[in-house]
Amino acid sequence: MKLRSLFVALVASTTAFAWHAASADEPIQPIQAHKPKNPAMVELGKKLYFDPRLSRSGIMSCNTCHNLSMGGTDNIPTSVGDRWQQGPINAPTVLNSSLNLAQFWDGRAKDLKAQAGGPIANPGEMAFTHELAVDVLNSIPAYKAEFKKAFGKDKVNIDMVTDAIAAFEETLVTPDSRFDKWLKGDKKALTAQEKAGYELFKNSGCTACHYGPAMGGQSFQKMGLVKEYDTKNKAQGVAGLTGKDADRMKFKVPTLRNVEMTYPYFHDGAVWTLEEAVDIMGKLQLGRTYSKDEIAQIVAFLKTLTGKQPDFKLPILPPSTNDTPKPKPFG
Amino acid sequence: MKLRSLFVALVASTTAFAWHAASADEPIQPIQAHKPKNPAMVELGKKLYFDPRLSRSGIMSCNTCHNLSMGGTDNIPTSVGDRWQQGPINAPTVLNSSLNLAQFWDGRAKDLKAQAGGPIANPGEMAFTHELAVDVLNSIPAYKAEFKKAFGKDKVNIDMVTDAIAAFEETLVTPDSRFDKWLKGDKKALTAQEKAGYELFKNSGCTACHYGPAMGGQSFQKMGLVKEYDTKNKAQGVAGLTGKDADRMKFKVPTLRNVEMTYPYFHDGAVWTLEEAVDIMGKLQLGRTYSKDEIAQIVAFLKTLTGKQPDFKLPILPPSTNDTPKPKPFG
Repeated sequence: MKLRSLFVALVASTTAFAWHAASADEPIQPIQAHKPKNPAMVELGKKLYFDPRLSRSGIMSCNTCHNLSMGGTDNIPTSVGDRWQQGPINAPTVLNSSLNLAQFWDGRAKDLKAQAGGPIANPGEMAFTHELAVDVLNSIPAYKAEFKKAFGKDKVNIDMVTDAIAAFEETLVTPDSRFDKWLKGDKKALTAQEKAGYELFKNSGCTACHYGPAMGGQSFQKMGLVKEYDTKNKAQGVAGLTGKDADRMKFKVPTLRNVEMTYPYFHDGAVWTLEEAVDIMGKLQLGRTYSKDEIAQIVAFLKTLTGKQPDFKLPILPPSTNDTPKPKPFG
Repeated sequence: MKLRSLFVALVASTTAFAWHAASADEPIQPIQAHKPKNPAMVELGKKLYFDPRLSRSGIMSCNTCHNLSMGGTDNIPTSVGDRWQQGPINAPTVLNSSLNLAQFWDGRAKDLKAQAGGPIANPGEMAFTHELAVDVLNSIPAYKAEFKKAFGKDKVNIDMVTDAIAAFEETLVTPDSRFDKWLKGDKKALTAQEKAGYELFKNSGCTACHYGPAMGGQSFQKMGLVKEYDTKNKAQGVAGLTGKDADRMKFKVPTLRNVEMTYPYFHDGAVWTLEEAVDIMGKLQLGRTYSKDEIAQIVAFLKTLTGKQPDFKLPILPPSTNDTPKPKPFG
């Protein structure tokens, strides 16, 4: 009995090692499910994420531009802000954004918490103030009770608000894509065309930037490395922060997870199809013209990257009270 | 045994009769849960309800103005439409709207199906066309599969779209409020103040208009029966349809179900608190000035009308394809 147990343990450990080694050889790793440390904070953050009372107008929430029904984006080139202002850049997906080395296309927020406060107070986006957002929440007893549960205190401040939103956003990872199943050893999870697409994706250099579990989000790279990118968008990327000419058009590499859902593509949202996006990337970043068949292979592979989408009940928000500051949708 | 069975049956039937009679005496009946005939159609309608691709801009869905996280309304005086146009009238709640005798404040749509097509094509609201909405859906294989399941055919037309949205909306009833529990015999479900509020609500004549399961939605009544309603809103109610002077300021009586969540109040959305709304209704409709204590009683009663809110998972929408008509958020 003892000997048999040892044998089973040995086989199991060898198998695990082999599997681990195979996966470790790949430039892309499976997305891991997230286990929240503070479920009460996640539940609260979910409500805040969907609450349009964090905007001046009373109609825009985080979910307006990072729509969780639609791949965590708004699927338009640049977002619509307060009073229908046109946003300067494509809204990146919130899905798997916890895996990014920094937030926003230019990385100006170091993490999700730092990001979450931005749009609320940005005059071109939700156009509110942190003070008013906090006043709204402090006027609603049901929210205060949830803050108490999550933070141990019920006098809300903006730090608690952004902590809670970030805690919810950390849950928005998308494991179990077909590609991840394949990575984990299910060799039937991909078709021959999809596997060929992955090989080509690796061998032609896409993984130089699109690596790691998120397949991106780990570095800033110049858009238009070999050939300049033709765009009307005025964003200058990291140069907007550093003022350095070398940082012109350097953007955070976007994740390719769920890329079938996150159209239109690039920082200017100018490209609507994956075929065109792959063609442009080949030419501009790699100096390579993919054939039609090659593009079809890579696109087939990219469509295997759609993972488990957000899976929770629509949150019901506690009503305002007589003391809640009023939204200002007009005037 | 036979005799005992008969006795039990008799007692049960007497009790049921007594209970039924007690409930039947009231001008308000409990909300009944809805059992959908075609669950596949409901699931499809839910997706359509949340899908902003039924708007010109690509960012407005039914849920934008009839937000199911917020009592089925947008909680602003009048809605924001395409290009931030100001809506002419307060967005009524979609909750329990299947119980209305007609839809819209002026009743111009005979049912939910007739209503559902309106905002999609209204240039001041979603600003799309039925043709383009249908083109969008026909371009998405995953949608076509759902239409096939619900309707037995997959060539989508606008009738199928509005049928599915209406089928979903029919599920949006809110049973099990504390008041309904009380109506059904749980005498501890209301406090003394809430019961006093209900008695006053009945005895002073509110139930002349706010009756039935929805406590409204069963008739058109003049806003400002005893005394004129002071408003800047230009809506003329039913007169806008009939041209008759007698129909001026006649609006469909709004439901009071979930009224704590459906602020601001009245067709112009000018009143933010239930206290003020009750005060105005007393004076304008009943020629009665309620005391502060009476208002507090009625408001306490009104807050017992919040029922079971929508309880389902956030729908995940199938992505567009290369053939899907593009949204036009700007220009």
